[in-house]
This record gives sequence, structure tokens and C-alpha cells, in this order.
Amino acid sequence: MTRLLGISSGDPAGIGPEIIGKSWDARAIEGLTPFFAVGDPRAFEAVWSGPIRVIADPGEAHETFETALPVLPVIDSGTVVPGEPDLDGARCALQALEMGVGLARAGTTCGIVTGPISKIQLQKVGFHFPGQTEFIAEACGVGRQNVAMLLAGPDLRVVPITVHIGLAEVPAALSVDLIVNRARAAAKGMARNFGIDPPRLAIAGLNPHAGEQGSMGSEEADIIQPAIDILRAEGFLVSGPLPADTMFHAAARARYDVALCQYHDQALIPIKALHFDDAVNMTLGLPIVRTSPDHGTAFDIAGKGLASPRSMIAAIRMAAHAFDHRQTYDG
Amino acid sequence: MTRLLGISSGDPAGIGPEIIGKSWDARAIEGLTPFFAVGDPRAFEAVWSGPIRVIADPGEAHETFETALPVLPVIDSGTVVPGEPDLDGARCALQALEMGVGLARAGTTCGIVTGPISKIQLQKVGFHFPGQTEFIAEACGVGRQNVAMLLAGPDLRVVPITVHIGLAEVPAALSVDLIVNRARAAAKGMARNFGIDPPRLAIAGLNPHAGEQGSMGSEEADIIQPAIDILRAEGFLVSGPLPADTMFHAAARARYDVALCQYHDQALIPIKALHFDDAVNMTLGLPIVRTSPDHGTAFDIAGKGLASPRSMIAAIRMAAHAFDHRQTYDG
Repeated sequence: MTRLLGISSGDPAGIGPEIIGKSWDARAIEGLTPFFAVGDPRAFEAVWSGPIRVIADPGEAHETFETALPVLPVIDSGTVVPGEPDLDGARCALQALEMGVGLARAGTTCGIVTGPISKIQLQKVGFHFPGQTEFIAEACGVGRQNVAMLLAGPDLRVVPITVHIGLAEVPAALSVDLIVNRARAAAKGMARNFGIDPPRLAIAGLNPHAGEQGSMGSEEADIIQPAIDILRAEGFLVSGPLPADTMFHAAARARYDVALCQYHDQALIPIKALHFDDAVNMTLGLPIVRTSPDHGTAFDIAGKGLASPRSMIAAIRMAAHAFDHRQTYDG
Repeated sequence: MTRLLGISSGDPAGIGPEIIGKSWDARAIEGLTPFFAVGDPRAFEAVWSGPIRVIADPGEAHETFETALPVLPVIDSGTVVPGEPDLDGARCALQALEMGVGLARAGTTCGIVTGPISKIQLQKVGFHFPGQTEFIAEACGVGRQNVAMLLAGPDLRVVPITVHIGLAEVPAALSVDLIVNRARAAAKGMARNFGIDPPRLAIAGLNPHAGEQGSMGSEEADIIQPAIDILRAEGFLVSGPLPADTMFHAAARARYDVALCQYHDQALIPIKALHFDDAVNMTLGLPIVRTSPDHGTAFDIAGKGLASPRSMIAAIRMAAHAFDHRQTYDG
């Protein structure tokens, strides 16, 4: 498999095209693995003054990458106005994602990095997934509960067990099976994509102080502890249920390789407090490598030249490292 | 009012006595306001080798403080075995707390710093409060929903709106009134205890991405936004409902003076991730100054000489500063 990454543009009116262009600018100084963009070339031209070359085949990307950002075009996204998303742009974003995943599935690339999309816009053109992660899982034939959304920065890695649902729905959405499946995906993902084998998993409680012996909620005893028992019986290294508020300072972080959190903000608050600019979103449990910057479309600053490419650069680097670790792991 | 603090020992088998002793050791280098301990003198002797002097009246504390830790004794706590709490110890902790609050209410001290107690132990001797905060509010004749539990470190201040309840109970426990009352207490507390007037309040959403326009929960529209509207109409500076995961990095923190969070871990995760050793718990909305170190009894390390007094020292310092600001604010 060639060491080449495909990067889907995300919403053409968001900051995706700009941060992809800026990442290309930094390719030498950051030592980045060659990549090409998938999207509407005009979305890049609208926000970035660097050289662009439209390619007809990903095979041209390696040679092109030295002197210009290779762009594999998708359907016309209409008139691109940064910061003003529309339906043409949503269709363009969706096709870029589909094409990027397909090329990774086919082995044409060694993985996909996805630019930020607008879920609200995509839903208007028929996208019925909670996010790109679930779309990619289905495209790869993997059940949603068998993948894990990893957010990873230099000092912390977290996996939310439930993700994009209201807080009131979280207790009912948790189950022993879900926790066990996410933890298995997380553990295998750590070994395969990071070379950490066996990884140490820390599992958070749901309630304050992990329920304080049942005085503030019973989910720890009813759901989380039984899941931990199953995982330990399978040989995984697991600690928990841990009080979530004392899991994320430096001394606590040193005790595990990945923290499994029960809901979105329990995972996202600490990772973004510690790694706002350089955290990466990686999907574990897929046959392909998939990473993404850990931020949204930022329509409010799109087209102003203000967007930081740090998370995108980190996502490109993590995808390349994951590819290397997989070569070793898969033997 | 004299510039003298009373410090309740907390559970005699916890780390309270040790960190109070260590704070006395650091009195000169840290420039600490004079204080005396309230508790069983033997609990201090058991874990700390510094000089102790039993006082019969707080009036002796000023002079004593130079050469020994003044201890105002409470009932005998029985045999103190660090790390092994018992009912005698719980009674001792409760009496120390009651006495410390009473002395602050009477103006004998300029405030109380409370050592860590075990809620489970205290409940066994008839304590029916969720924590010390609610006990002190009642002792001061202030309704529970009119106080606010502030956790404050050098770079972040947070107030949880709901506190020690299971996560599943949070959505139903939130109300417009509760949010408004906590915010008022927080705003006045910032002015009175910190000299920040008017303070900038940031209010978190409950759901991921603050509900993302209602697609993941309606509490933002139904409860939080109406509370914010009321607060703004009263002249408070309020932002929100904000997505909780993007509230706690440095650039976001610079935009507010205190963050109001909807539940325990939403507030405690970021403060403990950023300020594990030096955050302080302060109760806002009381007639008296009350602070506390932001950690528990740590029975597992009690009596081993390992406990860090950093949070206790920060609590002593913050109480003294709050007293000074109140002198100015109250005129």
C-alpha cells in the first residue's frame, strides 16, 4: 500500500480548505506524508493563495505534492462563499467524504483524513448519520457500536462511550454490551494504531465521585462494574469505575493509555481543556485509517485567513503513524 | 473584626490534621494570616511533629500562633488511627465544623476554613446534608439554592449549579429559578469576595454542543436561555448557553470571570484537570467567609506524611483575601 493520504475537504464554506492548504504550506517543515485533497478546487482557490493542481488520478499525487496541492475534484459546489454554507456545498462535502473513504477502502491511499462538515447542512441533503464517524463505520461494514471515537493529544487520549445524544438520554443508552464493545475497539485500536500493546484502559464512572458507593446513582454497580469484570476476564488491563473529576491531572493520566468516558462532555471537556489546538479525532475499529482535526467548520472565521492548521497537521501525522504501526501489527 | 481564621480539623483519621500542621509550618514563608485549628489535639499529635498548644479561647490564638499551632479542643475523638475512620471521629469532625461556623458567625474569627470530612461517616452520626456547604448554609440561615459552591484556581473559577446528585437526576433538577439564584450568588460573591465587579458570567449548556440548535436536547432553549434572559434583564454580564467542551482552554477562559456549569463533573473535571493541587472550594452567598481545600479525606494516605498542604494553604490565603475584599465591598 502506498504511503499517501487522502483528505476530504469538508464543507467548502468552512475552514477545511484553508487548513488543508496551510498544511500543504507546512509539508516540509513538518515532514508530512504526501497527501492530496478531495473536493472542489474552487473552494481552495477562494481561501488560499498557494499552488493547486487538479489531478485525475490519485497516482499523480506523489509527484505533484512537491510543487502544488493536488486536488482530486468532486462535483461542482456552486459558488463558494466562505462562512455561508449551502446545499451545493453540502453535496460537495458528502461526495468528498464518500470518495475519500472509497479510496482508502480500495488501498489507493493509506488512510483518510476528513475535513470538518456541518451536520445540519448534510442532513438537509439526506445524510442520516450522527456524524462522519458513523457514516464511515457503515461504509466499512462495521457496526456503530464496534467502533470507538478516539480524541488524542500529546498528553491524553479519551473515548466517549455514548457520543452525540442529549445528556438526559445517556443513562438509558449505556449498557454492559456497549461499554465492552467500545473498550475492545479502544484496546485493539491502541495496539494496532499506536503500538501500545497491551494498553491500560481507565473507565470513568457516570455519577459524581463514581456514585460514591451507590449514594449518587447505581449505574456504576449495575452497568459499568459488570462491563469491567467481563473485560478483565478477557485479559484487558482495566481500572475503574473511576471518579471522572480526578482522572485528568498529570499524575492520574500517567496511570492509563486511554480513558473511556460515559458521555460526550466527560471526554471532550478534558481533552479540549488540555489540547484545544492539537487534539486529533481518530476512529478505532475500522479496517482503514481515519483521522480528523478535532474541531468544526468554524464558519464564523472561514475565509479570513485566521484558521489554525495545527489540529489538521496533527491529524495528518497521526494517520501516517497509525499506518506505520498497522504495518507492524498486521505483520 | 479580628484578622484570624478558624480551621476545622475535618475527619481526625483523614489528612486534615496533617495538612493543617504543614500549613502552620509554612506560615512565615507563605505569609499566612494567623489561624487556629478546631479539633481533637491528639489527631494532630498523631500525624504531625510540630508544636501544638491547646487554647481555651480563640483570643489566645494570635499570640500562640507565632510559636505553636493553636488548637481549640472539641470532644474526645477516641483513639485516632489515621486512615481508619470511626464514629467517635465523625462526632469530633461534626463538632469542629459546628464550632468553627459558630465562631465565624459570632465574628470571633474572620472566616472558617473547613478540613475534609467523610460524608459517609458523618451520615452515620445523623448528619443529613449532602455536604458541608449545605450544612453551613443552613447554620447561617441561607437557603440551599441561594448559595453557590465555587471552585477556584489561579486560572479558572467554576460553580456547579446542581452538585451531589446522580447524573440521571440532573435534567429534572435544573430549573430557571435554580440557575438564576446560583448565578446571582456567584455574581455577588465575585464582587464581594474577589473585588470583581461586575463579573462576567459564562453559563454552560447541558447537552453536547449546547444541544446544537435543539438537535440533542431542549434544556438549553427551555431552561438555560430563559434564565440567561432574566439575568441579563437584571443587568448581569452573561454569555451562554455555551458548549461545555470549548469553554475551558486558555483563550476561552479569558472571556469570563466565573463559569456556571449544569452539573458536578462539568465543573469539577476542568478545575481538577487544570488545578489539581491548588484549587479552593469557597461557598458564595453566605454572611461568613468559608473556604475549604478542594479534596477529600484521602484516608489511603493519611498518617503517612504524604499529603500536600497546597490546597489548604491556598484555602487559607483565599479566605483572608475574601475577608479583605468584603471590608471594602461592605464599606
